Amino acid sequence: MAQKGNLLTVRKDLRVVDATIRDGGLCNDFRFEDKFIKDLYKANIRAGVDYMEFGYKASKEIFKEEDFGKWKFCNDNDIREIVGDNNTDMKIAVMADVGRTDFKNDIIPKNESPIDLIRVATYINTIPAAVEMIEDAARKGYETTINIMAVSKAKTEDIVSALDILGQTPVNAFYIVDSYGSLYPEQARHLAELYTEKAEQYGKVSGIHAHNNQQLAFANTIEAMTQGVSFLDATVDGMGRGAGNCALELLLGFLKNPKYRVEPILKVIENHTHKLKEKGVKWGYDIPYMLTGQYNTHPRPAISFVKEDRKDIYNFSNELYDIINS
Amino acid sequence: MAQKGNLLTVRKDLRVVDATIRDGGLCNDFRFEDKFIKDLYKANIRAGVDYMEFGYKASKEIFKEEDFGKWKFCNDNDIREIVGDNNTDMKIAVMADVGRTDFKNDIIPKNESPIDLIRVATYINTIPAAVEMIEDAARKGYETTINIMAVSKAKTEDIVSALDILGQTPVNAFYIVDSYGSLYPEQARHLAELYTEKAEQYGKVSGIHAHNNQQLAFANTIEAMTQGVSFLDATVDGMGRGAGNCALELLLGFLKNPKYRVEPILKVIENHTHKLKEKGVKWGYDIPYMLTGQYNTHPRPAISFVKEDRKDIYNFSNELYDIINS
Repeated sequence: MAQKGNLLTVRKDLRVVDATIRDGGLCNDFRFEDKFIKDLYKANIRAGVDYMEFGYKASKEIFKEEDFGKWKFCNDNDIREIVGDNNTDMKIAVMADVGRTDFKNDIIPKNESPIDLIRVATYINTIPAAVEMIEDAARKGYETTINIMAVSKAKTEDIVSALDILGQTPVNAFYIVDSYGSLYPEQARHLAELYTEKAEQYGKVSGIHAHNNQQLAFANTIEAMTQGVSFLDATVDGMGRGAGNCALELLLGFLKNPKYRVEPILKVIENHTHKLKEKGVKWGYDIPYMLTGQYNTHPRPAISFVKEDRKDIYNFSNELYDIINS
Repeated sequence: MAQKGNLLTVRKDLRVVDATIRDGGLCNDFRFEDKFIKDLYKANIRAGVDYMEFGYKASKEIFKEEDFGKWKFCNDNDIREIVGDNNTDMKIAVMADVGRTDFKNDIIPKNESPIDLIRVATYINTIPAAVEMIEDAARKGYETTINIMAVSKAKTEDIVSALDILGQTPVNAFYIVDSYGSLYPEQARHLAELYTEKAEQYGKVSGIHAHNNQQLAFANTIEAMTQGVSFLDATVDGMGRGAGNCALELLLGFLKNPKYRVEPILKVIENHTHKLKEKGVKWGYDIPYMLTGQYNTHPRPAISFVKEDRKDIYNFSNELYDIINS
């Protein structure tokens, strides 16, 4: 069960989820070297990470395999090549997007797969489709979470309705997803309170996935945690779409349970993510992302701005104003 | 008087303090072009900033003038060259370090100076010397604040004693200074509660100056604000020693009072701070600063590491462990 706690408490309900490959893969079309994935897998185990998310189970009908690295699709065999039978305390997760996953065919029974957890990603208006996917995955033997994206745009009464529907399903955790990096800590705490209350009502737990548009991903994660949120998403070096995510090294350095260690992650940063940045893969806090976060809007225009190597942030802020008010 | 408030409240007690030149000057020995200072001054006025801190009033007996740019010393004439008679709503501040300021000679009567506010910086063990400086500045006609540095290392009972002594002085505001960027939001809120309570007891207000070692400078600033803290320090682009500060553009984008505007600051970033970074002036969140923040220790070893362009963060974390435990 979820717990609340202060800075000195060890929270046995906590689960640290490394989402580096999945969210970071959005920065390089999932083209990671196997060495990166193997080193990250080993480092996560040593760091005490509870779940490692490998990528998406994307539909090969919708996306062409040649356009992406393999972690867009997460074939069970590709995961097994990294983890073998994964005889460790760390569980393996993948994400399945509503409407973009061929889940009936691509998600095989759990007893034939190295995957433990299917994370179903949905917007608030596609909850029924998400329920179908949760029920399918649970029937096949998986743990499941429901990740309701762009929560900063959703109305509270719609969130309550969604959680009441999801409470009737076998889903294990309700996730707050701040896709736009728009939440302030006060708002993150309020949402965490709501999600945790609803989770308790239905015998489930809650989680948070934060973005760093306003340098608040780490703050929002630990503030939500203090309200009872159990599943905490983070990525190495904050690698993730746009402004990136809560940095795993910040989170591990904060948590009091001695099983969590930051040092193994420092090696991955030194050997891999810093080198990716040098090679031109782009993510992390920057003014254009700050502006889309402040406007509570999708980071798409900011991602284009950064990709084009533009420097005229003042013009960008005017363009953004026009986009939003047009 | 100080107020508490939620996300939608306009807080009339708030004072935004731009500390770019003073804290940012620690990154380039205060060698700013006049154009930067003039543009910043104008932008701050347009952005609704309440106080602009120009630099230190450092003793010319202790520091050689040729070793630094002029904002290390903040001669009244140099400030006047930028601000004229400063016929604006924005006030001018400088910092005076205990033991490093020739305050009897260098701080002239207020009616002869463009400066409005003297910020006295002290450690908790030099409060009596700080009191002497506060009384001197107040007698000369200035507003004053007391900035108690490295508060994350101070014992609560010592902070209480210090604030009780300072309560008897003419100082206008008690400042929480998280020099090591070590506070978590929960701790920032507790300190804010204590400072605000003591400030109210003595008819004063409180302030916060946060550092960004753990990407928490902005979060801690707004969380302290919610507890009633009135003076909020920030710097353009987060420019400041080591990991830097609460970014002014994040803070202005958050505040609800329509007098605050972020756009003028974007121009300063585009035209000045981004270019300083390109020229090699270094500041901002980085793994070595994160580690000194997590260890609650002075960023000195991290500053050296970054200055030397070292990349071996894993070795650094071991060295830091040895330094702290030796």
